[in-house]
Amino acid sequence: MSDRNRRLVLAERPTGMVDAETVRLEDADVPEPGPGEALAQVRYLSIDPTIRTWMDDAPGYLPPIGIGEVVRSGGVAEVLSSNSERYAPGDFVFGMTGWQDYVIADEGERTLQVLPPGVSPTAALGVLGVTGMTAYFGLIDVGRVKEGDTVVVSGAAGATGSTVGQIARLKGAAKVVGIAGGPKKCAWLIDELGFDAAIDYKNEDIAERLRETCPDGIDLYFDNVGGVILNACLARLALRGRVVLCGAISSYNEHERVAGPSNYSALILRRGRMEGFIILDYFDRFPQAQAEMAGWLAAGKVKAAEHIVEGLQHAPDALNLLFTGGNTGKVMVRV
Amino acid sequence: MSDRNRRLVLAERPTGMVDAETVRLEDADVPEPGPGEALAQVRYLSIDPTIRTWMDDAPGYLPPIGIGEVVRSGGVAEVLSSNSERYAPGDFVFGMTGWQDYVIADEGERTLQVLPPGVSPTAALGVLGVTGMTAYFGLIDVGRVKEGDTVVVSGAAGATGSTVGQIARLKGAAKVVGIAGGPKKCAWLIDELGFDAAIDYKNEDIAERLRETCPDGIDLYFDNVGGVILNACLARLALRGRVVLCGAISSYNEHERVAGPSNYSALILRRGRMEGFIILDYFDRFPQAQAEMAGWLAAGKVKAAEHIVEGLQHAPDALNLLFTGGNTGKVMVRV
Repeated sequence: MSDRNRRLVLAERPTGMVDAETVRLEDADVPEPGPGEALAQVRYLSIDPTIRTWMDDAPGYLPPIGIGEVVRSGGVAEVLSSNSERYAPGDFVFGMTGWQDYVIADEGERTLQVLPPGVSPTAALGVLGVTGMTAYFGLIDVGRVKEGDTVVVSGAAGATGSTVGQIARLKGAAKVVGIAGGPKKCAWLIDELGFDAAIDYKNEDIAERLRETCPDGIDLYFDNVGGVILNACLARLALRGRVVLCGAISSYNEHERVAGPSNYSALILRRGRMEGFIILDYFDRFPQAQAEMAGWLAAGKVKAAEHIVEGLQHAPDALNLLFTGGNTGKVMVRV
Repeated sequence: MSDRNRRLVLAERPTGMVDAETVRLEDADVPEPGPGEALAQVRYLSIDPTIRTWMDDAPGYLPPIGIGEVVRSGGVAEVLSSNSERYAPGDFVFGMTGWQDYVIADEGERTLQVLPPGVSPTAALGVLGVTGMTAYFGLIDVGRVKEGDTVVVSGAAGATGSTVGQIARLKGAAKVVGIAGGPKKCAWLIDELGFDAAIDYKNEDIAERLRETCPDGIDLYFDNVGGVILNACLARLALRGRVVLCGAISSYNEHERVAGPSNYSALILRRGRMEGFIILDYFDRFPQAQAEMAGWLAAGKVKAAEHIVEGLQHAPDALNLLFTGGNTGKVMVRV
């Protein structure tokens, strides 16, 4: 181990995409674990769209990251030394590590958790982590997916979207349609993940392709993007259709107020429901969902798509990948 | 009775408010009741915002009114002569009478229904009719109103809104706030109907007044209007807040595409739900709801506010009242 801790701190609030001015690399002492604490070295960072929202000085489900604070981020770390019975050197732990080399684990409630046996560090951040849980609870609990449903998911080649489509199939959806950017991602959704159809929003007419692929309407739309795609899906909602609001990635870098979905009134005509959720609320139920997901993974029924970026210093670029659509699957940084 | 049947037929589709060109007064023969049919004279017409939507050539929950067809409308009629055991002369019947003097009742499923004993013709169209049922099922079934809720309703001085506020109180809401146009309506909501507060959207800053009247956020917002008021209420949604979409009266006369609610993403942060409904779906459950409502009426716990316009020929003006806000309570035409 080094005797220095590299930390990426928020230097100024971005107005659009994160750039060279947004974060600053700081060199700090490696923290000393006190009584009941352990020192862990960060191995992987989970790169999620929500990190971008925490950089804004706006009310959210968590407070904004302060200027000069380490960028808040999920991650997996390996315990190096421990003054706690909860942690042993060599253990992998996951939770909020931040964008830095070293982190202290303590014995509090909201601290880092030891990875269950058999779970790889990247799976802990991806399909078995917050990303996979977001797909699971959003689709099953909020969306109440049921047999025979026509399910559409946007951001379908992303970490959450790719998992949503696969779980929908396992839960009996009659048709699974993904919306993604570019023919390569679309082909991947169909060929590798077993989606029935994919819509390339960069090159195709979304409304027309939704008509073609969902002739009887959309029973469940899982929205990761907001904007024009949300609006187009609302217009095709089936009777008693459900819209699960997971995120609005199309707006996170927008400085201006984003237009709302003008087709929201389809919710009246179609007796539809649009509902948002925050995965933190489901934390207590993760173990049961992780057990089911682990079973699917082991049986090859769910594929974990991972997109690894090398080097802590590239975390900001990795974050931007989510917004340019440069990734396929879960983006992580190997520190 | 006259030997002529005056009928208001749709002459051309309006682009904004209904005007002199929209409907045409026709003079037709009084229809002859056949076997199993009865002839009834229309006494009251129910004037509802939805009539305006049926005049557009756009897909809806019912087909558009055809050019040359009698304007579709709810109403109450009195049976004059009958060839059916279901109807006796002197019976009052309610259902879709249309804007005309005479109507035929038959023995089909979707025909006119005889008014239950003790129910006045105007109550049958108002609190005990589709209007009251809309308030009842929207608030209780879709909105799941519960004790301690802070409830906000727009179009609060209208037929549905005024009933929503009163039922919310009866169901244990801690606070009932109405949004209406003008100080007179606002005073009426508080003084006559027992609302806790009223916001005059024509003269007050809606967002500011929502902050004042709902310091802990809105648990349930019953939306009759859409537009900027819906957007302002979304911004104040409490955790797990619910938005019941009943109508969007602010848009029915708009020719241009109306902007969507840009604050819809509050549904994510606040784990909120926005759901639409159409009252026709609840038809089978009307009797139970009407029984409860009749009890409240008899006990003076719900006041039926009625706004009567005289004369069939004024039905188009009566419809426009809903959009100019010229009414307080349920608009009906005495034919």
